[in-house]
Amino acid sequence: MLKEDRFFDPDPTQKSIAIDLYNKVKDLPIISPHGHVDPALFSDPERGFGNPVELLLQPDHYVIRMLYSQGLSFDHILSQEDPRKIWQTFADHFYLYRGTPSGMWLTHEMQMVFDVKERLTGKNALNVYDQIQSALLSADFLPRNLFKKFNIEVLATTDSASDDLKHHQAIKSSGWDGKIIPTFRPEDVVNLLAVDWHSNIERLEVVTGADIGDFASFIHALEKQRTFFKSLGATATDISMVSPKIELLSSNERDSIFQRALAGETTKEDADKFMATMLYELARMSSEDGLVMQIHAGIIRNHNPFVYEHYGADKGFDIPVQVEFTRSLQPILADFGNHPNFRLILFTLDESTYTRELAPLAGAYPSVKLGPPWWFNDSWNGMRRYFDQVIETAGLYNTSGFNDDTRAFLSIPARHDVWRRASANWLAGQYVRGLIEIDEAEQMIVDLAVGLVKKAYRL
Amino acid sequence: MLKEDRFFDPDPTQKSIAIDLYNKVKDLPIISPHGHVDPALFSDPERGFGNPVELLLQPDHYVIRMLYSQGLSFDHILSQEDPRKIWQTFADHFYLYRGTPSGMWLTHEMQMVFDVKERLTGKNALNVYDQIQSALLSADFLPRNLFKKFNIEVLATTDSASDDLKHHQAIKSSGWDGKIIPTFRPEDVVNLLAVDWHSNIERLEVVTGADIGDFASFIHALEKQRTFFKSLGATATDISMVSPKIELLSSNERDSIFQRALAGETTKEDADKFMATMLYELARMSSEDGLVMQIHAGIIRNHNPFVYEHYGADKGFDIPVQVEFTRSLQPILADFGNHPNFRLILFTLDESTYTRELAPLAGAYPSVKLGPPWWFNDSWNGMRRYFDQVIETAGLYNTSGFNDDTRAFLSIPARHDVWRRASANWLAGQYVRGLIEIDEAEQMIVDLAVGLVKKAYRL
Amino acid sequence: MLKEDRFFDPDPTQKSIAIDLYNKVKDLPIISPHGHVDPALFSDPERGFGNPVELLLQPDHYVIRMLYSQGLSFDHILSQEDPRKIWQTFADHFYLYRGTPSGMWLTHEMQMVFDVKERLTGKNALNVYDQIQSALLSADFLPRNLFKKFNIEVLATTDSASDDLKHHQAIKSSGWDGKIIPTFRPEDVVNLLAVDWHSNIERLEVVTGADIGDFASFIHALEKQRTFFKSLGATATDISMVSPKIELLSSNERDSIFQRALAGETTKEDADKFMATMLYELARMSSEDGLVMQIHAGIIRNHNPFVYEHYGADKGFDIPVQVEFTRSLQPILADFGNHPNFRLILFTLDESTYTRELAPLAGAYPSVKLGPPWWFNDSWNGMRRYFDQVIETAGLYNTSGFNDDTRAFLSIPARHDVWRRASANWLAGQYVRGLIEIDEAEQMIVDLAVGLVKKAYRL
Repeated sequence: MLKEDRFFDPDPTQKSIAIDLYNKVKDLPIISPHGHVDPALFSDPERGFGNPVELLLQPDHYVIRMLYSQGLSFDHILSQEDPRKIWQTFADHFYLYRGTPSGMWLTHEMQMVFDVKERLTGKNALNVYDQIQSALLSADFLPRNLFKKFNIEVLATTDSASDDLKHHQAIKSSGWDGKIIPTFRPEDVVNLLAVDWHSNIERLEVVTGADIGDFASFIHALEKQRTFFKSLGATATDISMVSPKIELLSSNERDSIFQRALAGETTKEDADKFMATMLYELARMSSEDGLVMQIHAGIIRNHNPFVYEHYGADKGFDIPVQVEFTRSLQPILADFGNHPNFRLILFTLDESTYTRELAPLAGAYPSVKLGPPWWFNDSWNGMRRYFDQVIETAGLYNTSGFNDDTRAFLSIPARHDVWRRASANWLAGQYVRGLIEIDEAEQMIVDLAVGLVKKAYRL
Repeated sequence: MLKEDRFFDPDPTQKSIAIDLYNKVKDLPIISPHGHVDPALFSDPERGFGNPVELLLQPDHYVIRMLYSQGLSFDHILSQEDPRKIWQTFADHFYLYRGTPSGMWLTHEMQMVFDVKERLTGKNALNVYDQIQSALLSADFLPRNLFKKFNIEVLATTDSASDDLKHHQAIKSSGWDGKIIPTFRPEDVVNLLAVDWHSNIERLEVVTGADIGDFASFIHALEKQRTFFKSLGATATDISMVSPKIELLSSNERDSIFQRALAGETTKEDADKFMATMLYELARMSSEDGLVMQIHAGIIRNHNPFVYEHYGADKGFDIPVQVEFTRSLQPILADFGNHPNFRLILFTLDESTYTRELAPLAGAYPSVKLGPPWWFNDSWNGMRRYFDQVIETAGLYNTSGFNDDTRAFLSIPARHDVWRRASANWLAGQYVRGLIEIDEAEQMIVDLAVGLVKKAYRL
Repeated sequence: MLKEDRFFDPDPTQKSIAIDLYNKVKDLPIISPHGHVDPALFSDPERGFGNPVELLLQPDHYVIRMLYSQGLSFDHILSQEDPRKIWQTFADHFYLYRGTPSGMWLTHEMQMVFDVKERLTGKNALNVYDQIQSALLSADFLPRNLFKKFNIEVLATTDSASDDLKHHQAIKSSGWDGKIIPTFRPEDVVNLLAVDWHSNIERLEVVTGADIGDFASFIHALEKQRTFFKSLGATATDISMVSPKIELLSSNERDSIFQRALAGETTKEDADKFMATMLYELARMSSEDGLVMQIHAGIIRNHNPFVYEHYGADKGFDIPVQVEFTRSLQPILADFGNHPNFRLILFTLDESTYTRELAPLAGAYPSVKLGPPWWFNDSWNGMRRYFDQVIETAGLYNTSGFNDDTRAFLSIPARHDVWRRASANWLAGQYVRGLIEIDEAEQMIVDLAVGLVKKAYRL
């Protein structure tokens, strides 16, 4: 199972430094500034996690897509019946995760959270299932208790702009002292082609008490909701799109597009233009209210129509495309990029932008920070490439620590552990090459584990 | 010359694991599912290889372009006269291949196939020439005998859609038991601007007995030829193009374009559209007849008009360009990507697509597998980058082992040896970092050497 | 401070080989074929460097942008008043440069040039300032003396096409034997939207004695100036642009564009077309007069309008974009790429072009050489990526050694030292993996340090 010195490069000198550095931060609290954990897990103190399949497999698009890619059917994998049979299938195919981040996280969860002592195989599948299931029934495994056990200092969720944040309110009013904060994500009202756009707008009207009849009232409602999110602890916003291109539209054009949307007549071109102009508006709002703006760019959602129609979104078929940042973001950087209140954190799945665009931008604009390796690249090699390609140009202090960006609450410690080990390994490699001194490495490892993320996210 | 422990990373622990893993597969049979060896080499049992220059230098665009890049003239290098003088030039410039795959393969061939004991130099050039030439005159060096000596289990050639496969038929009817199978490559009839397109169509008419007067009869002839190829053992097709963009045309439009082609009035736009619609047709055919579809995308052929006009194609002037897969392939993945019969193997020279597009596609669609590092990237570092960038997202089991993709028959063992060593080195690196366990590494090395390729190519 | 064995990989066997190789070249003369040092430093034998801030900080966009990126004001950093206070700010923030090339160069300069014995900190800031300042007042630190101390064999400056090269003439006529040669950079007359284009054309008229009233006379004036540059030792030209696209315009169109420029009516489209056609003309001129053509492509200048308006150009806000070479350069490679007199050295900040476009082009065209890692990528990891991605395809002998490309004269030894160490480390890694033999490594290290650059730049 897990080796104590896992993930470190094998040179003995380097490895011993890496272990020392890792030991300095392995027990520090977890700061999770961006992710998709459901706040409902924590609003009801008695709520549990269900069975191992609905906890560990079915919601995890990393895990299920790998099974699907090998010809297994989602009818079986996503079935609500006979979870033990699904678990058996999963165990029979556990070899598929060799060398993948999912494999590492799952192994970590099984061993460190559930005390499973053997690698999952077809043979031990049901025993492991039973062991996990019985753990899940104990009070120690209630989400609030795991939150404490995991030593999470702060956990940010991601919430729709039209959310009433009732779970966040319930957590707050429950007197429980776990710090769980919302993040303002306006995609389902800003993307005019979002599923249920009209009802999302209606929900936004309800929560803000506004009458959203034109662009101005839409903007005003968003601003009002941002203030509400801040009141519940939010420090950040998030938005995802295919291209981060900004386009400034005339007041008339914005209104016409918005009116067509209200009338149910949005075109693809309308939607693209609206996103491009709203990115500017969202940057303006951030420069005013100080909420950190996160951009996750360059994903085509639901690439596989069969899977989307039959099984819905988030099934592993969001596929990246090329992204351009330098020209695309110039309008907001020109207007807000030097503003002390504005903070923009950029994420990419197009690693060719690391050295070419993102590191130079983050290394120059005071408002821009570079987010950690995202999604597919939140992996051992993804982190290595990130450190190698980003730091020399951006400087460590223009990066923003780590995000687990997960909906799988139980994988949070595993993911932060990979980051802390990867950071220690990278710093040890820098040290043994004489690129930094040991006291610098000792400060940098703490910055990587907790310092940078707190500063970047204003936590 | 060649060190026993070549190509392995120097850390002693890792290297010793790598050697153990390599030893498990170094003598396994060679599976060569895609390449350009001439089947005529094997149809006549007495056919030999000619002299060292026409065997090792002149047909190898890797080798000759390097000499040309340093100002040597193709008039000299490609001359049919005085091969010893050409060999002397080659030996005088052998330092140019330092650290290149060509250098490694040539050295391997000279040492392991021809028992040359010294590195090639200007001084020993003619002795080495004589040693190779005299070996080539012995029966041991007849292609069929080398095929056995190289322990090749199956060798796929690449054959025009309009080929009569007479060499394949002759091999089969000769009673020799070497397994050499054709691959269906329809480029010279699908690319309307292919040299000799009209005569290729005529050849296709001859071999199929069809009268190709419209799009429907063209499609029908292709389908008939695919069946013929299958009857001679083919399991795969191949096609290469600049952009893998798919475009669905109306039946009318396809016909008009085809009619203009027959009339000799093809435009560049016609040709692009035709390729884009034929990719869809070829995918459909594969989903029906189960022939694996290979796409090699993103090459501009014959970039240097002077060289092309004076010396012809395949002289080292095929230069890659950017490729886009995510959007381009969506139409065929939407329609056939979930089909159990459809298998698509993707190759790229644009490594920025590894993490961004190809690994996510291969890691989700059951039909998609990722081909090994292609052409320029079929190299030590190319393999290292491939493992590092592909496996974490795609998973090992959505890759397809190794292709030598060569017309240089004698380089086949050298190329597979590099792959097996690179695989062992990568796995040893994974093991010493605790990313996989030793029993997993031992299975994975066999998968990398023979298992994955057999499965991917339905061999 | 600096370790003797810095930058080398930690494996003891590899490191010991790396040190041996490095020792063979560490004291070889410095060849600097491309950079931005001001020739005026050397024309007046008594001219000094000013204070530490105006020497080491303010002209170095790498250094000042990092301070700006962390919210420090250029009003302070670039102030002409109280340099000690600025130096204190710099020292307080010296941790920002951890792991960056700037950090390595600055540390090298302080230790090796100024004999500073401690890492710069807020505490020792003013002592270090005083130590450097007092050194700068001594005769040893006059530029001509440092030139000799640094063991510079040749230093190429970069000079406007309309320059009268008076400092170069003064150096020559002074009898001093330091070899400082100009480089012909016609950007400020070829880019029709260049600041002061009209006065640049007037300056070109003055220095050439020509009357530039149309395209033909413009071309003629450029050709005349190239001859003048050659007479003062120039062997190369340089030009930078966003896209290296070539476009052949009709004689009429070129003239019309030029006339509109003279009339002050240049459009963006005019400027783009003119650059695209002038690249062809410059290639033609190089094929005639033999001046090496350098292309530095893919930078958007002055991305931050606030900084540009208030503080001017070269403040760290030149941000790269994607570049395409394969198609873009085809017209000049078709016409001049096989010409023995033509030499084209290509530089990129878009590393995705290394394996995809640049290495294949350099590995085939006799005229094309690949420049070293440029700007942001002139770094430890940038060099590692370059060796890994370029050499296998291009071959070492189609690269062109090292450029320091700096305006910071004092950083020249530091930069060449990084290159020599990176080269030694790479070669040692090749050797311990059995990819090259030791006598090959010993030749290659000398080629990397001095041989390749002399040959590529015809020095």
